[in-house]
Amino acid sequence: MLLVLDLVGVAVFAASGALAAVHARLDVFGVMVLAAVTALGGGIVRDVLLGVTPPSTLRQWPYLVVPAVVALLVFRWHPAVSRLRRGVQLADALGLALFVVTGTSVALATGAPAVTSALVGVITGVGGGVLRDVLLNEVPTVLRREIYALAAAGGAVVVVAGDAAGLARLPVALGAAFLVAAVRVLALWRRWNAPTPHP
Amino acid sequence: MLLVLDLVGVAVFAASGALAAVHARLDVFGVMVLAAVTALGGGIVRDVLLGVTPPSTLRQWPYLVVPAVVALLVFRWHPAVSRLRRGVQLADALGLALFVVTGTSVALATGAPAVTSALVGVITGVGGGVLRDVLLNEVPTVLRREIYALAAAGGAVVVVAGDAAGLARLPVALGAAFLVAAVRVLALWRRWNAPTPHP
Amino acid sequence: MLLVLDLVGVAVFAASGALAAVHARLDVFGVMVLAAVTALGGGIVRDVLLGVTPPSTLRQWPYLVVPAVVALLVFRWHPAVSRLRRGVQLADALGLALFVVTGTSVALATGAPAVTSALVGVITGVGGGVLRDVLLNEVPTVLRREIYALAAAGGAVVVVAGDAAGLARLPVALGAAFLVAAVRVLALWRRWNAPTPHP
Repeated sequence: MLLVLDLVGVAVFAASGALAAVHARLDVFGVMVLAAVTALGGGIVRDVLLGVTPPSTLRQWPYLVVPAVVALLVFRWHPAVSRLRRGVQLADALGLALFVVTGTSVALATGAPAVTSALVGVITGVGGGVLRDVLLNEVPTVLRREIYALAAAGGAVVVVAGDAAGLARLPVALGAAFLVAAVRVLALWRRWNAPTPHP
Repeated sequence: MLLVLDLVGVAVFAASGALAAVHARLDVFGVMVLAAVTALGGGIVRDVLLGVTPPSTLRQWPYLVVPAVVALLVFRWHPAVSRLRRGVQLADALGLALFVVTGTSVALATGAPAVTSALVGVITGVGGGVLRDVLLNEVPTVLRREIYALAAAGGAVVVVAGDAAGLARLPVALGAAFLVAAVRVLALWRRWNAPTPHP
Repeated sequence: MLLVLDLVGVAVFAASGALAAVHARLDVFGVMVLAAVTALGGGIVRDVLLGVTPPSTLRQWPYLVVPAVVALLVFRWHPAVSRLRRGVQLADALGLALFVVTGTSVALATGAPAVTSALVGVITGVGGGVLRDVLLNEVPTVLRREIYALAAAGGAVVVVAGDAAGLARLPVALGAAFLVAAVRVLALWRRWNAPTPHP
């Protein structure tokens, strides 16, 4: 179950990385590299923090094939993909949601304490996007005004609390993922903003 | 003792990250994220390099509460904080000093050789600031003209030498921290510059 | 054998980092830090991914002395070094070639599977340059239009295939390194370009 959720997250984050690379006018190999970094970066950082080496992401073929295929599809049909602006935002929200949930769950499964697991989940969710933005020389989305970190933290806390309460894992995971994605999508579409410093 | 020094370092680096975030006009969650990354980044990198997983920084509540509280204080009262420009520089110098000393000491305590421990100490000291500057899209302070790396290396060498000579740890740690902070503050206030390449 | 190839890679990457730092007008300590990060970054990331902690690069004196000496030489005689533009490109190609080969070989030696080893080799090869470019606030070379990632991947696949076929290691390593360097140099000098997205 975790593997399937994780691969869906990999696919949607690969699409987000590939699209950003196309907009930055990288060549086809650059698009593939950035798609892979965005899709796999969060999971690799998660495993390094948990001491799982080599990271499981680097040990399984599907984790490489999925970003490569997605990158080539986006490279070829990017005008159509770009036109679906809301679709892309939805994909990014879904990727964040799935990675926060799988990251937190994997950490709990290694026996990490609750607070550690929640933090590792948040880092897993935002890590790939941070690497994508840093490599393209932009200030990462997670630091901009879009309730990104808060949505991720909320999902991680739900997974950890469900685990502590001994609830069934699948419904908790789906509920937490829905929460993250919903907060993100509503923040984008309704232009929710957190307060900024007064000047 | 190490824990207290470490938490003071966390607090002052959190203030430096939060202030940089306020100046970059991030929202309140961005300010909290950047404060946490600046304050905890060096210690997380230190533990990953030493094979301490999950990093101790991610296992203890105070390491999360301190940056969050500092970030909110800076967010609310940043004009007053900014006016204390020398105070901010002093805080950054103190953070560097404390993290170099605790990083080197933690590495020695895990049985790492002297040269490894000194390097890990320097990386611990400069790591948080490098992450802060990279995320804000700036060339890191450690690469600019301010005797930053040299001060850090000096402190790490003192800790390693004191350990090799079998001296009592607390006075050596305090002396090394004082050395780092003093070199940094003098470099800033007296405008010491290292040579630049001739054109 | 691996150690010698690795140190040659360290020296040529240190030169590339030091030259980039001189062009960015850093001071002498900034030049040394950037030379060290460029030269050692890939190997440190390799060891962290493989769970070799503390990283072997941080345990051996030559890995520190070589970048420091190279940085000072470049700092002092950079006009002569810059004039050798083709020489610098050749050095970077050679560094990439050597690090891909040693990274893949070290991963295989720790018992990592073939696909993991190839990926770790590519990351080892491109890692130092990515850190150099990110710290100087530039989009990394590996994402630009120069067949960089493809050359690295080709070399890593040759090493892994030679290992699977049970061939003697030294000739395979040299052949793979030659392949990487040759592809890179030809791509630069003949202006090979990969396709970019249509507008």
